Amino acid sequence: MSSQPDHPTLLIPGPVEFDDAVLQSMSHFSESHVGPGFVATFGETLTLLRQLFQTTDSSAQPLVISGSGTLGWDLTAANLVEAGEDVLVLSTGYFGDAFADCFETYGAKVTKITGPIGGRPQLPEIEEALKSKKFKVVTVTHVDTSTGVLSELEKLSELVKRISPETLLVVDGVCSVACEEIQFDKWKIDGVVTASQKAIGCPAGLSISMWSGKAIEVFQARKTPPASYFASFKNWLPIMKNYEAKKPSYFATPSPQLIHALNTALVQILAKPLSERFARHTEVSDRIKKAVTDLGLKQVAVKPEDQAHGMTAIYLPETVKATELLPRLAKSGVVWAGGLHKEIAPKYVRFGHMGVSVTDPNRKDIDKALNALSNGLSELGYQKA
Amino acid sequence: MSSQPDHPTLLIPGPVEFDDAVLQSMSHFSESHVGPGFVATFGETLTLLRQLFQTTDSSAQPLVISGSGTLGWDLTAANLVEAGEDVLVLSTGYFGDAFADCFETYGAKVTKITGPIGGRPQLPEIEEALKSKKFKVVTVTHVDTSTGVLSELEKLSELVKRISPETLLVVDGVCSVACEEIQFDKWKIDGVVTASQKAIGCPAGLSISMWSGKAIEVFQARKTPPASYFASFKNWLPIMKNYEAKKPSYFATPSPQLIHALNTALVQILAKPLSERFARHTEVSDRIKKAVTDLGLKQVAVKPEDQAHGMTAIYLPETVKATELLPRLAKSGVVWAGGLHKEIAPKYVRFGHMGVSVTDPNRKDIDKALNALSNGLSELGYQKA
Repeated sequence: MSSQPDHPTLLIPGPVEFDDAVLQSMSHFSESHVGPGFVATFGETLTLLRQLFQTTDSSAQPLVISGSGTLGWDLTAANLVEAGEDVLVLSTGYFGDAFADCFETYGAKVTKITGPIGGRPQLPEIEEALKSKKFKVVTVTHVDTSTGVLSELEKLSELVKRISPETLLVVDGVCSVACEEIQFDKWKIDGVVTASQKAIGCPAGLSISMWSGKAIEVFQARKTPPASYFASFKNWLPIMKNYEAKKPSYFATPSPQLIHALNTALVQILAKPLSERFARHTEVSDRIKKAVTDLGLKQVAVKPEDQAHGMTAIYLPETVKATELLPRLAKSGVVWAGGLHKEIAPKYVRFGHMGVSVTDPNRKDIDKALNALSNGLSELGYQKA
Repeated sequence: MSSQPDHPTLLIPGPVEFDDAVLQSMSHFSESHVGPGFVATFGETLTLLRQLFQTTDSSAQPLVISGSGTLGWDLTAANLVEAGEDVLVLSTGYFGDAFADCFETYGAKVTKITGPIGGRPQLPEIEEALKSKKFKVVTVTHVDTSTGVLSELEKLSELVKRISPETLLVVDGVCSVACEEIQFDKWKIDGVVTASQKAIGCPAGLSISMWSGKAIEVFQARKTPPASYFASFKNWLPIMKNYEAKKPSYFATPSPQLIHALNTALVQILAKPLSERFARHTEVSDRIKKAVTDLGLKQVAVKPEDQAHGMTAIYLPETVKATELLPRLAKSGVVWAGGLHKEIAPKYVRFGHMGVSVTDPNRKDIDKALNALSNGLSELGYQKA
């Protein structure tokens, strides 16, 4: 049924498997980046992103820039913070730690609260930190791709707004946008940074972000110029406003092919209610978590409420090495990822379950992966205790 | 013959028309960015870039990063210059001026020599500037896309190395790499920054650059950390070395589809001697320039030796407006670009002639464009004086 050649099923926590129509959009014939056809496509794409982020506030602004998810950290650090200002980073793994490194590159003073491995920082300790000094920005990794730990946004936002209403809340949504619910307006979020290649289901190469009117006001009130050129709001905000108004505009050349693919992916996502999409990811995730538990395995994310719905990080039995299991999965046509959190890297593997592998009822990717896991463990001599 | 649907022929100075096989590579099925298949493709692509830049010096390092050509300026400014250091920017149009803006964002002290509109800064004035103070970096826009002015690199490099041997020479090759000769080693160039969507013939979305061992030494001798996170040599150099050594490595997720397309484009380019490719671009450019002159029109780039070979910026007759001519060309199925240099923008148009439109003998793009120009001008009442 697929127009793609036979290939191993990619079930890592990003990039994910892509829909045929999305991949076909990647081959779009060449267009001028300022011609009416592409300008309309880009403008529509930005408007679709507002729906994905559940924002109707016209002061909010989506950005789509050639780059990777990492560029979203530079957008945050170079535009919303000035050298010497304090930021609070809530870390649940590798990506929270790296976001802190990015802030330090731009001269911010970072306070970091790190959850225990497999857990998240708790609200009381966050409250204490918020009361200790004035933070310009609080960041949280919605799902840390290294651990599969899910953070809770709504209560965190309530806390931040209650204790420190001027502080901006910026969410790293690289591994959560389009598979975990994010209500940008209702939860009073000031920024979400993400990438194309995970639950959005478009090939890698795009930094996608959404910024509140308040975040943009904070940017505009800077005393110093933005600390990056390529990642400067000053350079990009007018461009994105123009594209969405269907006016040609130029700062740096966008990628028409990637934008077409993103457009196709967003049209597919938004053809059904988002609530169904999130529920489907939860349902499949629950089934995966149960299968993992039934095999006698533990997850890196300890508590059920801390477990992401688009990926599962699974501790291996002590007798099984990742370097033995992953090749067996590959022989079964399933690609998983090894561990990334440096303190536990060899002890676990990561299974991504986002996008068409979860939502397309014609695909049997999840069953195939769970069977491959069960068979691989058996072949390596593992039996449930 | 083409597998692409009928579409207007894109003859702007980038993006250009793309070969079918390159566009098909954009639809490559999803792969892990750290899996052996993709790692081999990326590694090979980096090695092919060494051939394109005519470098065999193993201390030189290519980088391929998701982004646009503009990101190359940040790579230069954030890694090779520290705040307060002097740089000399040679400007021949919009892009030279913007490179200077990028340096200022990172706190460099910019001295800019701007050529007259349609000309380039001359060696004696550059020599004078080089003698006036110590510059960390000299930059030159090889072809300024806004004016079609070509700069001369070999004599410039000789001058810089003679007067100020420690100064690095960085070339903005966005509109020149793969259509103008660049001998990275022989001409002692320290950096070339470019993008995928022009003469290289791969869709937009990749910042491509080459750095000399000396540039990397200067980076390593920094007193302060790199001034960008996403554009940091510290973050990217080990990753690129690992990919080229066929070892998986992670800083930020690359775009497998774009890298596959770049690989296809480079294999096509390098299947023939580069000298033939440059000669072909020169031959077609000469024919275009003669046709433009025969129509009684002048180019923005005044002197023949200052005229680029991958694009032509053409002054319109006084009686013809770009807003009238460009739609007529579009009706003939040809897309050209308007003016971009702010002082003369409404007075000229830009014709890009790079890549398959020039090198593929089956394509009649250039004839089609010249006929459309001639007919469009006639229809608008223009007659050669």
